[in-house]
Parts: sequence; C-alpha cells; structure tokens
Amino acid sequence: MYVFVNAATSADGKLSDRTRTQVRLSSDEDFERVDRLRAESDAILVGVGTVLADDPSLTVKDETRALRQGNPIRVVADSRARTPLDAAVLNDSAPTVVGVGRDAPDESVDALREHAGVKVVETDAERVDLSELLDALEDRGVERLMVEGGGELIFSLLRENLVDELTFYVAPVFVGGRDSPTLVDGEGFVDGYAEATLEGVERVGEGVVLRYVLCSEDGT
Amino acid sequence: MYVFVNAATSADGKLSDRTRTQVRLSSDEDFERVDRLRAESDAILVGVGTVLADDPSLTVKDETRALRQGNPIRVVADSRARTPLDAAVLNDSAPTVVGVGRDAPDESVDALREHAGVKVVETDAERVDLSELLDALEDRGVERLMVEGGGELIFSLLRENLVDELTFYVAPVFVGGRDSPTLVDGEGFVDGYAEATLEGVERVGEGVVLRYVLCSEDGT
Repeated sequence: MYVFVNAATSADGKLSDRTRTQVRLSSDEDFERVDRLRAESDAILVGVGTVLADDPSLTVKDETRALRQGNPIRVVADSRARTPLDAAVLNDSAPTVVGVGRDAPDESVDALREHAGVKVVETDAERVDLSELLDALEDRGVERLMVEGGGELIFSLLRENLVDELTFYVAPVFVGGRDSPTLVDGEGFVDGYAEATLEGVERVGEGVVLRYVLCSEDGT
Repeated sequence: MYVFVNAATSADGKLSDRTRTQVRLSSDEDFERVDRLRAESDAILVGVGTVLADDPSLTVKDETRALRQGNPIRVVADSRARTPLDAAVLNDSAPTVVGVGRDAPDESVDALREHAGVKVVETDAERVDLSELLDALEDRGVERLMVEGGGELIFSLLRENLVDELTFYVAPVFVGGRDSPTLVDGEGFVDGYAEATLEGVERVGEGVVLRYVLCSEDGT
C-alpha cells in the first residue's frame, strides 16, 4: 500500500492558528489538486482531532469527478472512539472505517459499529495501532491511502515509518504561535529525525508545493 | 533600513527539536550562503533565547571574507538583560548592542554597559521596544539588518510590521513535536496573518531556499 500525506501549511509550517479552527490556507489551484488526489485515492485517513476540529466530510467535491470515480473510503484514527455520531465523516456519502484502541469505551465502540456504513477496526494497543489499521485497510483492497492530517497523526505515522510520501502546499502567509498546530506535532523526534528526499518543488498559485519521499529505515 | 530574516528550518517548520539545543539543519551550501549574507550585513540581530540556547558568536566564518568585509555589529534583543557576560556574542570580535526593556534589573544592565565593546540601548517598554531598538541602530548607520532568530523575536518583528524579507533554507527532514521551536512562535496571529509574496524558490544542496517579501500593512 502506498501511503501519502497531503496538507496545506503556512510558510512557517502551521496547519492552523492557536484557535485550532479550520482556516483556508490552500489556494483555488491547490484545492483543485487536492480534490483530484482524493478522487484517485482508495481511502482517506484523518486523526480524530481533525474530525472534532473541522468536521470534514472527506468527499470528492467536483461533481463530475465524484460521479465518475466515486468517493474513497473514509478512515478515522480514533483511539478512544470519540468520533461524534453526527460527524460529517459518518454521513452516507461513502463507507467509513474507524480504527480504535483497546481502551476505547465499549459503549462508544458499539454505537459506532451500529451506525450505517461504519466499520470499526479494534486494534490491540492503548492508542490505535496504525500498522494494524493499515493492514485492515489493505485487506479491504486499499492500495493508495491519502492522509490529510492532523499533525499528531502525521507524527505517529512517521514514527512508525508508515509514510511513503509527504506533499504540502505552502501558503505565502505567516501564522506564528508556539501553540499553533504544525504539520508534524506529537512528541517529535530527538534522536534521528525523519529523513526525506525533496522530489518536487512546484509553484502553484501564489504558493509552492513541496513533495518529499521519505527515506526508509535502512537509509535508502 | 532593510530588515531581513534568515533561518534554516526542517521541512515541518521547526528551528530545533523539543530539547531546543542547537541542531544543524543547514547544508554546507546553505552555510556558505548565510556566511556571505552576514558579511554583507551591517548588523545581525538575535533574541536572547538564541544566545542562551546556542551561544553563537554571530561572526563571519570565512577568514578572507571576515578580513575584507569585517564583522557586522551584533545585536541582542534582551528585555530583561539576561545575556551572560561570558556569552560568545559579547567577545571582542565585533561591537555588540544589547537592547533591553524598562524592567531589566539595573545591576544586569550596568554589568553589560561596563563590558568592553558593549552598548546598551534602554527602551521604554516592558519587553524591549523593537522599533526603538531599530531606530537606535539606524542612528549608528545600520542600513542592512539581518535577523537570525529565534521564533519569538521573529514573531515580535512581524507583529510590529518591521520585517521586509524572510528567507529560509528548508532541510529535507521532519523534526515534529508540538513543543519544538518553530520559525515563527510567540502568541501567533489570529486575525490577520502576516501576508507575503513568494519571491524566490531555489534548490540549494538537498533542500530548498524560500524567499518571501512581506506585504506592508496597507496590503502592497
């Protein structure tokens, strides 16, 4: 399975400001690029933080494209099963997989499981085991997985060496803020940062899209 | 006076990892570029956080260049006069200006003032008034001021609309960490991010240098 992260950041690497509300950093041109990427993906993964903050539906927006290619499976990494039952990501536009950890409350897990179109993947770790979740997706035929954030999930995926590619649009704006969410949050690396090769630099609209291919653990 | 920020970040916008120790994110090629920029500047400004964390001497490293062009004036934005008297930035390689706020302890200010080669600029604000400090530098003939960080100082300068240009080398590495220092920290903007024009995109070594020119307050 090919796992690629796609995001939009400010020029100083923020996904939003300190209020953590959804802000539109991408340009029209980038919006188009992202919509095409979504349509070409088998599944789209986000962290539950993104669901709670932005309530995205994670569907293909262009109608022709949506009709022709359909919507990808939506996937939420949700250790404690906090996805609200009325979240847009659980609507009937596409099937949704929710990956939970072993400490997720039974009640919440059951409620999700009974929700139409939802499949719950229970993994055997306190925080959702991302390898297990990705294996379960692969079993369902997912070959291209697009990750749309947030920074906590992206860090966890990088730490587990599960990311093949990381591409982001850099908006020509500075947000700042020591408490603003960034592209890669989590605990962060100290010994051994995640090394990558810069494969693409492309001006899009007034910004630039940077495409990185992650180096595997053996340094290749 | 032309004020330009120069920095090196990870691909996710971090200046260092959560330990806040100095890490070498720049490449050899970028090091060369930065050294040339230093030699061409009249003064180099850093925040006291950078002095305390990294103890930089802020001198031109290439010997021929240093001989020919001399070292720029070093400037520390240091609200509470915390620059240690044995800091490398106070050595005899070049004169140093320390800008302090009105609540800086007299004892510390006096000790700095008595240090050879140091000039203290006392500004009338709790945190050092950066406009006042820059005016004092201009009075000393500084026409090109290079700012080398950290993220707290860069945010303060952006908030005061004092930055003309912001250029940084983006290393092909992801550091992560919600507590790692970023290119622009501080409180961050919420209403009205600092808008810029992407003037340059240049591959340098294995990374890329992005050059932004800040838009002035009237939107031009």
